[in-house]
Amino acid sequence: MHFSGKSNIKLPCERFSVVYKLFGNEKEAYAKAKDICLEQTVEFPEELVPEGVIADHIVGRIEDFKSIAGGESYEAVISYPVDCAAGEFTQLLNVVFGNISIKTGIKVERLELPEKLLSIFKGPRFGIEGLRELLKVQDRPLLFTALKPMGLTNEELSELAYKFALGGIDIIKDDHGLSNQSFSPFDERVRLCSEAVARANRETGRHCIYMPNVTAPYSDALARAKRAKELGAGGLLISPGLAGLDTLKTIAEDDSIALPVISHPAFQGSYVLSNNGISHGVLFGQIARLAGADGTIYPNFGGRFSFSKEECQSIARMSTEEMGSLKPIFPCPAGGMSLQSIPESLAVYGKDVIFLVGGGLFRHGDDVVENSRYFRKLVEQ
Amino acid sequence: MHFSGKSNIKLPCERFSVVYKLFGNEKEAYAKAKDICLEQTVEFPEELVPEGVIADHIVGRIEDFKSIAGGESYEAVISYPVDCAAGEFTQLLNVVFGNISIKTGIKVERLELPEKLLSIFKGPRFGIEGLRELLKVQDRPLLFTALKPMGLTNEELSELAYKFALGGIDIIKDDHGLSNQSFSPFDERVRLCSEAVARANRETGRHCIYMPNVTAPYSDALARAKRAKELGAGGLLISPGLAGLDTLKTIAEDDSIALPVISHPAFQGSYVLSNNGISHGVLFGQIARLAGADGTIYPNFGGRFSFSKEECQSIARMSTEEMGSLKPIFPCPAGGMSLQSIPESLAVYGKDVIFLVGGGLFRHGDDVVENSRYFRKLVEQ
Repeated sequence: MHFSGKSNIKLPCERFSVVYKLFGNEKEAYAKAKDICLEQTVEFPEELVPEGVIADHIVGRIEDFKSIAGGESYEAVISYPVDCAAGEFTQLLNVVFGNISIKTGIKVERLELPEKLLSIFKGPRFGIEGLRELLKVQDRPLLFTALKPMGLTNEELSELAYKFALGGIDIIKDDHGLSNQSFSPFDERVRLCSEAVARANRETGRHCIYMPNVTAPYSDALARAKRAKELGAGGLLISPGLAGLDTLKTIAEDDSIALPVISHPAFQGSYVLSNNGISHGVLFGQIARLAGADGTIYPNFGGRFSFSKEECQSIARMSTEEMGSLKPIFPCPAGGMSLQSIPESLAVYGKDVIFLVGGGLFRHGDDVVENSRYFRKLVEQ
Repeated sequence: MHFSGKSNIKLPCERFSVVYKLFGNEKEAYAKAKDICLEQTVEFPEELVPEGVIADHIVGRIEDFKSIAGGESYEAVISYPVDCAAGEFTQLLNVVFGNISIKTGIKVERLELPEKLLSIFKGPRFGIEGLRELLKVQDRPLLFTALKPMGLTNEELSELAYKFALGGIDIIKDDHGLSNQSFSPFDERVRLCSEAVARANRETGRHCIYMPNVTAPYSDALARAKRAKELGAGGLLISPGLAGLDTLKTIAEDDSIALPVISHPAFQGSYVLSNNGISHGVLFGQIARLAGADGTIYPNFGGRFSFSKEECQSIARMSTEEMGSLKPIFPCPAGGMSLQSIPESLAVYGKDVIFLVGGGLFRHGDDVVENSRYFRKLVEQ
């Protein structure tokens, strides 16, 4: 089959690259690399790809291919035209991992995006430096906890928020399961918890913020974020796996909101847990950062989830390493972190980290104010 | 730690259930089931869960637990209060698989939703019956193809659309990689391809429809769908893995659009490919249907992807079995389907299926009109 003519589109030559880890022997891995080049662009039989600009520029290009991990797997660097991403986060993700998400033994290990592509992202508004300025905390890890358990009334949740703030927590978020339930309506919760934290701040002279969960249906996500701001929230929590990565981006980049945003990993775990998917560092580091999160929550090593120390370190690294003009963001290790694990985590992450201790903060003793003070002491040592 | 008082929220007793497949030995599997009950609701240490309504109703409840597959794995039915889902698709998905997406060896096998929960979904507008009426095709599988490869001009794509329609294809979609690239701007593409298909319909007297890809960033997704309608599109394609499942729902349920919508699996594959995730039938059947898709695209067995015949059959089954008042929807097997595989697929799916043949339709011979006629003959036998 041939077309009415070779495509005569004009395509600027700038390209971006994706590093893929490929499982299998060398022949299989190389076949996967070749396949990715077609699948992620033309999705067309190789022998029928029109010559000229489509074959030469649109189709992905293997820029490098080598064995890694002592020959156990392979790594391919594949480049695509920047224009294939159409200046859209959704389409960029589609080129990176759309159809090949349905193929086995392919993992996205790194995005290498030139400035032209990074320019479609405003990136994190606060980042590490901005969030530290907002909270007036420069020299220690930030303390983060969650209002829970689901099923408390908004009055009870706001009372907890008051106590956490009094005890010295820096950021208090909704548990990620709190949305707009009949037993905890969103607007009322945001108002009460914002007031409770403000009351504690007046007493302590500190700058604790409350972050409600704005993970919501399409029709209400942006509106809910705006209402949260009006009702006194100091930041926002969102689960992009549920609401969409571009929804996070839209909320983070909205200048009428202009609040720090932290990303929660709910519904995203399947991408990182097998040989098919996206690496921890790319999903919770690079992609969260592109989306404009100022901090990225993920389960810490040694907790009730299965991430290794190395995987967690890769998230921290890709949250902070140079990425054009995008600000570095806070890794927020969480997920069953106990207060006992803080010293080890401090050694791993250093001070530019936000420790999210939820249930563990209730376990230490009967008084959450005292528990929060104890948490604070652990990071001030 | 105890709270200011037991929560005194009132909770209607209606519950919904999720069937999970759990990997490991019996003890491990049962521990996973218990863990899910907490993780997906209160996310709180078991010993600290407040007595009363939270312990008795909010926390998930194991309704059944048994070994399956000859003891190789286990199955737990876990129920949650309908009110925990807050009447929101996003929050329902969060309760079903939010945090536990980050735990290994847990797979969602079935959703069992009572009418009260189903009522938050309008469901598919057309479904099998409605789409057949729209296309005036009652007694055979529907024929579906894609405009590709990426890199053709909009004029070339529209010329292809004309030929496909002339040859007897029922639904012609954008390749899922076409969004709003500089070399194929969305509005122009929709206008040209809609006109081309209308021209062919005038010549053939048939009712072929063109479905542009409306997968788009948050700020433009709904608007793009509305523009597509105004520009003459006969249906819409969307990848909910990229745009968000609730974005699909919003577009499908919008009465000012009221076009058939077909779901594409891009960026969703990782959920089904390992022992952590969501089963093929739930993700591409039940969830696509809840979101309001009239058809669900997935890679057919025997193509260039790895789904088994049984997995494909489970998608077809869960797309069509009774689910409250939600209409049955079309399974759309695709993904490297060749024309040669049609007879076998006919035997597996019967007539209520949409065969999506993309690249394979170019392979048969040089003339896509003739290739389309041949495709048509294969299903009319």
